[in-house]
Amino acid sequence: MTYCVALRLKDGLVMLADTRTNAGVDNISTFRKLSTIEHPGERVIGIMTAGNLAVSQAAVNMAVEQGVRVRDGDELETLHTVPTMVRAAQLMGQAVREVYRIDGPSLEAQAGDFNVSILMGGQVGNGEMRLFQVYSAGNYIEATEDTPYLQIGEHKYGKPIIDRALSYDTALGDGLKLALISMDSTMRSNLSVGMPIDLMVYRRNALKVAMQRRIKDDDAYFTGLRHSWSDALTQAYRAIPGPGWEF
Amino acid sequence: MTYCVALRLKDGLVMLADTRTNAGVDNISTFRKLSTIEHPGERVIGIMTAGNLAVSQAAVNMAVEQGVRVRDGDELETLHTVPTMVRAAQLMGQAVREVYRIDGPSLEAQAGDFNVSILMGGQVGNGEMRLFQVYSAGNYIEATEDTPYLQIGEHKYGKPIIDRALSYDTALGDGLKLALISMDSTMRSNLSVGMPIDLMVYRRNALKVAMQRRIKDDDAYFTGLRHSWSDALTQAYRAIPGPGWEF
Repeated sequence: MTYCVALRLKDGLVMLADTRTNAGVDNISTFRKLSTIEHPGERVIGIMTAGNLAVSQAAVNMAVEQGVRVRDGDELETLHTVPTMVRAAQLMGQAVREVYRIDGPSLEAQAGDFNVSILMGGQVGNGEMRLFQVYSAGNYIEATEDTPYLQIGEHKYGKPIIDRALSYDTALGDGLKLALISMDSTMRSNLSVGMPIDLMVYRRNALKVAMQRRIKDDDAYFTGLRHSWSDALTQAYRAIPGPGWEF
Repeated sequence: MTYCVALRLKDGLVMLADTRTNAGVDNISTFRKLSTIEHPGERVIGIMTAGNLAVSQAAVNMAVEQGVRVRDGDELETLHTVPTMVRAAQLMGQAVREVYRIDGPSLEAQAGDFNVSILMGGQVGNGEMRLFQVYSAGNYIEATEDTPYLQIGEHKYGKPIIDRALSYDTALGDGLKLALISMDSTMRSNLSVGMPIDLMVYRRNALKVAMQRRIKDDDAYFTGLRHSWSDALTQAYRAIPGPGWEF
């Protein structure tokens, strides 16, 4: 399993991904699921993936390195060259379809599962900062001000805190805290989501990465946040008055 | 969908169930999923169900009214007559198997889904207060001091708060608050879990129901709790210091 969450806020993007992959509970590995394309002053695109690892790696390789033709007859393009974020989403979608064309029949023959989902956020040149989710079918949706976040993988455990506390106007630092809390809630309840976690923060219009960091098991801030959050929740529910119902 | 959560704490039981059933998002109804058997001074058994409504109603009817033979050759028994909680779990499991024997083939012929899960908690006579979960296969598990709660239905959204804050020693009133918060988190994220919600509280060794209540949309306490909890979460994450990472 996997958990990735991306926030598109008024001040910038937060992208956070775990690194655990598993084929059964007895075969667990660590793979980076967050990758970043950065040409300072020109573009930043963050990519996070969930699903079949062979499929997501093939699609990312194609979109980042080998190049894809978005339409028949187009030149080969990559995420390093696409002129807009929408084009980036289309390119990634086309890469997913191309992987399906090449690997889909063999996967089906082996009863393998063609499933992949990709979050892609960033900004190119003078364009808007945008955040997309690309599906296995190669189509995509975009985060909006109403719903300023997207999740892939094991999304349920980490959703309530984001639903309650996050809005488009949330400050970038607060968004980062909420993403970390959401990740922690997920890791506590699903063993197939695990440390280390990879983080990327991007400030709107900066056209360079604001921060990239691998957060490991011994990270002092994350450890403190886990404890503070558990303590705060316990205090919070205790502080709510009882119902006054007789029992 | 459905969400039911039951806590077995040192002082007693809390059982909480929503009432929404749906066949698609365009066909939503309200059905009670929590029922109680009470013979004051002798037994209290609370039952909550999730899954195919026809299956769960048939199994409960059989276990409560019509009677089931736990083993071939036994007398017909019901939950009103079983001598222990373990026997109650076995009886309910046998009822589920009997429904499968009668309805399973026809359900399969119509591509229907035979799925049901049942939480059953209570106390009979001098026996221990116990809490069981009965599966579609008719087998069951029991809550322990290590894991003093069981959930059925849409369990993920409401699990993090319980995982972090609940233990066997949690006071009954605090457990009730946590169950309500867990239910609220679930209802916010999954439309197919909805109001009103049904609550039953049982005090260990009382052999009578401590409280039973249907909580409706306009319930002042629950409305207040929802707001207090959202406010408390927002304050709690804001109070956690920032990471001090440059970005």
